Amino acid sequence: MTDIDVARLTALLDGDYAEVRAKVRAAVADHAPLLDEVEELPREGYRERVRETLLEMARTGLTGLGFPTEYGGAGDVGASIAAFEALAYGDLSVLVKSGVQFGLFGGAILQLGTAPHHETYLADVVAGRLLGCFAMTEHGHGSNVAALGTVATYDAATQEFVIRTGAADAFKDYIGNAAAHGELAVVFAQLVVGGEERGVHAFLVPIRVEGLPAAGVRIADDGPKMGLNGVDNGRLWFDDVRVPRTALLNRFADVTPEGEYVSDIENPSRRFFTMLGTLVQGRVSVGGAAIAASEVALTIAIRYALRRRQFEATSDTEEELLLDYGQHQRRLLPLLARTYALHLAQQVVRHDLHQVFSGAVTDEKSRRQLESRAAGTKALGTWHATRAIQECREACGGAGFMAANRFAALKADTDVFTTFEGDNTVLLQLVAKGLLTDYAGEFEEMDQLDIIRFIGETAVETILEKTSVHTLLERVRDAIPTAGEDEPDIREADYHLAMLRFREEHMLAGAARRLKRGVDKGLNPGSVFSRVQDHVIATARAHVERLVLEAFVEKVRSLPDGAERDVLELLCDLHALSTIEADRAWFIEHGRLSVQRSKAITAEVNRLCRRVRPHARALVDAFAIPEELLRARDLLGAG
Amino acid sequence: MTDIDVARLTALLDGDYAEVRAKVRAAVADHAPLLDEVEELPREGYRERVRETLLEMARTGLTGLGFPTEYGGAGDVGASIAAFEALAYGDLSVLVKSGVQFGLFGGAILQLGTAPHHETYLADVVAGRLLGCFAMTEHGHGSNVAALGTVATYDAATQEFVIRTGAADAFKDYIGNAAAHGELAVVFAQLVVGGEERGVHAFLVPIRVEGLPAAGVRIADDGPKMGLNGVDNGRLWFDDVRVPRTALLNRFADVTPEGEYVSDIENPSRRFFTMLGTLVQGRVSVGGAAIAASEVALTIAIRYALRRRQFEATSDTEEELLLDYGQHQRRLLPLLARTYALHLAQQVVRHDLHQVFSGAVTDEKSRRQLESRAAGTKALGTWHATRAIQECREACGGAGFMAANRFAALKADTDVFTTFEGDNTVLLQLVAKGLLTDYAGEFEEMDQLDIIRFIGETAVETILEKTSVHTLLERVRDAIPTAGEDEPDIREADYHLAMLRFREEHMLAGAARRLKRGVDKGLNPGSVFSRVQDHVIATARAHVERLVLEAFVEKVRSLPDGAERDVLELLCDLHALSTIEADRAWFIEHGRLSVQRSKAITAEVNRLCRRVRPHARALVDAFAIPEELLRARDLLGAG
Repeated sequence: MTDIDVARLTALLDGDYAEVRAKVRAAVADHAPLLDEVEELPREGYRERVRETLLEMARTGLTGLGFPTEYGGAGDVGASIAAFEALAYGDLSVLVKSGVQFGLFGGAILQLGTAPHHETYLADVVAGRLLGCFAMTEHGHGSNVAALGTVATYDAATQEFVIRTGAADAFKDYIGNAAAHGELAVVFAQLVVGGEERGVHAFLVPIRVEGLPAAGVRIADDGPKMGLNGVDNGRLWFDDVRVPRTALLNRFADVTPEGEYVSDIENPSRRFFTMLGTLVQGRVSVGGAAIAASEVALTIAIRYALRRRQFEATSDTEEELLLDYGQHQRRLLPLLARTYALHLAQQVVRHDLHQVFSGAVTDEKSRRQLESRAAGTKALGTWHATRAIQECREACGGAGFMAANRFAALKADTDVFTTFEGDNTVLLQLVAKGLLTDYAGEFEEMDQLDIIRFIGETAVETILEKTSVHTLLERVRDAIPTAGEDEPDIREADYHLAMLRFREEHMLAGAARRLKRGVDKGLNPGSVFSRVQDHVIATARAHVERLVLEAFVEKVRSLPDGAERDVLELLCDLHALSTIEADRAWFIEHGRLSVQRSKAITAEVNRLCRRVRPHARALVDAFAIPEELLRARDLLGAG
Repeated sequence: MTDIDVARLTALLDGDYAEVRAKVRAAVADHAPLLDEVEELPREGYRERVRETLLEMARTGLTGLGFPTEYGGAGDVGASIAAFEALAYGDLSVLVKSGVQFGLFGGAILQLGTAPHHETYLADVVAGRLLGCFAMTEHGHGSNVAALGTVATYDAATQEFVIRTGAADAFKDYIGNAAAHGELAVVFAQLVVGGEERGVHAFLVPIRVEGLPAAGVRIADDGPKMGLNGVDNGRLWFDDVRVPRTALLNRFADVTPEGEYVSDIENPSRRFFTMLGTLVQGRVSVGGAAIAASEVALTIAIRYALRRRQFEATSDTEEELLLDYGQHQRRLLPLLARTYALHLAQQVVRHDLHQVFSGAVTDEKSRRQLESRAAGTKALGTWHATRAIQECREACGGAGFMAANRFAALKADTDVFTTFEGDNTVLLQLVAKGLLTDYAGEFEEMDQLDIIRFIGETAVETILEKTSVHTLLERVRDAIPTAGEDEPDIREADYHLAMLRFREEHMLAGAARRLKRGVDKGLNPGSVFSRVQDHVIATARAHVERLVLEAFVEKVRSLPDGAERDVLELLCDLHALSTIEADRAWFIEHGRLSVQRSKAITAEVNRLCRRVRPHARALVDAFAIPEELLRARDLLGAG
């Protein structure tokens, strides 16, 4: 292979947003000293430095790209996600506080509010003059948002909503910007109008005035956390706090002065999920940030492995480079391949998000597929970050444990990514729900019971028809013959894709059948679901794995011939085959892999690791993470 | 199943050391407030509090049980390990500082020194009046101890050793007690006598006098770390520091006043490994502590899952308990089963250690097998802790991210356990070395090259003979017929054991053959090793997995009939079958599992999870972790 042009790889990874990402990289690099400073700062000081940095970032305009130009943004949702991803190369408290302020708080006003809200608040939000909270999660309810306990009762006499923390565990919890800096909160509460419950809606509630809690609001600090200690998470209680009627973010539903509830969306459950759906950007952002954090970890660990020697192995006089050990290649290179795969899959999600939110695509099904894809990519991306950062830390030995080498913060700060913006397991259930119902109009509104009833009431054949399982199985059977017969080239991308498609469709059909069988037997649907839950979640995972591989294959196929395409082909094969290898038992069990072929795949993964090895440095350099942000002077040497 | 008697389970887990462990539990519980305090303490303060706590612990006598009675100990190595394990229920900086002071520093004086050293130092060490360091690891060399760069040159004129940090990267690094509290260090250095290099030996070197670095010693603080910030890790440089001839810890080798080097062990490499071998307690301690840390995490996560409800599932009116979800059972219960398995396997290692160090067992092979077993259990135990703590954190959602709920410290503090006291990957290679050479007299001295040459020079048939592979394969074939034929009961422990034995022996024979084949082809032995390294390490892992299961099965079989035995049988089966399930591809590939059987095992694991579910609370209560140490009031409720 001729020499790889790193800049070309970087351009490919930056995709449509090279310019924005270059600007964010430079801005984050300017704040690189923060990474050192915060190590020794007590929590208060860390929070203040993060607030300052956030405000400086806001001044560059790079944190508000998704807002309309009239409020200081660029009206470009895709760019805002690309910028957020690159922001993740720096301090992750800055990232998360930025996500809270601009993504969640500002995003909720933009997406759930109407013109008067936008005009009153957005310019201040974008500039960072008004810091705020996204007060959805409660102590007692996180994943099950529909069951929140905070209540907003309309008082027609004064034309106000009265916000009240209901049950003892209904206080808002883990809310970013709540403990110290937020002045205004978007509060999610059960709306009650004229004695009638209307479900969860969002309200703008001032929580702090001149640094003190607003009347009727009680605020507590969540205290020290595993990571992200530069973000001031806190708890909020509301004791009959009165806000004007206009505090309701009324894009999807409103209350007239007289106390009449009005909405264009009749079905309350659909209304709820339409509201939640507009907040999908948060998930896309977290997924992208997690992948970026893995890139930092892999850059450090691979560069260290290209410098550190330990034990004589191939020579009696010189110790061996870590990356020349087969086991070390096995530890790091499939993770590198997967990071590329996820990075490119994230580009697709970002693109889809941009299409939907810019109005280029308007159909309901595309919107639902985006939500599903965002949920799935977030789950796989954040789990990948947890695993990759851990493996990279261990691959750097004791040095990796020192805070100066970044793994401490990377590991502590990204830990909660698998939980916030949707618990990964719950998100994969959401993905499965979409698959099981083929994104039926009603799928979002269905809870687990509804899904099972839906499947129970619909003939499985219909579901199979709907999900096109039959056709897909036929198609797949042509591409991957039964195990043992005349198998295609082990490095053929169509073969890899066919394998992942087969797994997905087979699992899906199986899950549907098992759910129906249980209900047909008259078992409690919840118990049926509990028993099939691992199968359902595995199905969702298989679906997202297929989407991720497709994104990688399509990107590689779109490239002109050359060294960059060649190395990415190797990397794509490494990703595909190590993904198949990881679940090879399933493929054997389902007749799609012979024992011989299975062993050949393991051998090929090892071979691909050796072939990728010479390009490892170029492949991590292509992430173009500013040197100042890597810190790790001990691990990487002077230059 | 009738009610389980938790106290009986606790007695079983405490084994021979119920009394000691009860005392340590009480002492650690007395220091429970430390867990809250240290969250807000700056590093300096944390270190001081940990030092104070260490000294208070020393006064109880529970930290020095392994030392001879004449110096304040109890002369009971097994008890000292059991105490250390229970200490891990509390703050892990206290644990690690205790390990540094009593295990490593004190242990080195005890094991490598002779009577004069013991008399001069041990009473002060045991009482905590003299704090010290174990200065082995250098910045440039950790795993490869034989290549350390610090040099100790004997000067016969003054009868002193001159200690000098050699190469730029030969300073001692990550040394506990170095940055603030240590006064004396056991320094490992290359001994040079009369111009001749004699390999690595240990010397007592004063590093700090009245709080200031001793003359010629430079000390730097390692700075903030991912965790264990209550331990003062630091760096040490020696600039021709002179220590008297008696500073050499001379149990295995000595230098006469005239400068003659004398040792009862002729082979220098064997001498080196004999010295290192006496330090095996450190590995046993870390493995046990890691398992104890998993117990804390699982207690919190399982009790939370028995209290927290989210989403309606089996009922329209009440939300479902987390632990009643199939997926949640899958996440936590096999980890619980594995924790029990490792806990009981650790008892065996502890027992073997006690036998060897009390002199009850004296043969060389037992000593080597102990070293191998300690290395393997440490590797599996610490990796398990990393995985279990992470899964438990995620299973507690956002609440798990709050420092008050213990996961933050558990995760950060245990992270380095996979690295210190031997990098896990390197340790598994050590295990494999023992297997490949059947603990031949020379195995410890062999490096990777030697091993390959050894295998190359010895007919593989001889190796197979030596490792008894042939006989074992025969024996195993009787117990597990070829896949598809007349398979034994899926829950039969002998079947599980036979499967793990078959895997181990088959992998071992295969690794030996592949190594030999490569060398026979005339390839560079190092490259051959690199290619087979993943196979070699998998072999070691398979070996340790077998030992762990054997320990569990034997313990269960030793119990009288009753509810405790019944539930442990379920748990043992869950552990065995989920272990086989995790590697079912391998078993299918090697003809020991039919596809049908493989699917049946997955179904059985799910079934066992449901059967263990009602006993989950009793099984974690049996760890008997004092309630104060769990903290997590939010997660566990008031009582």
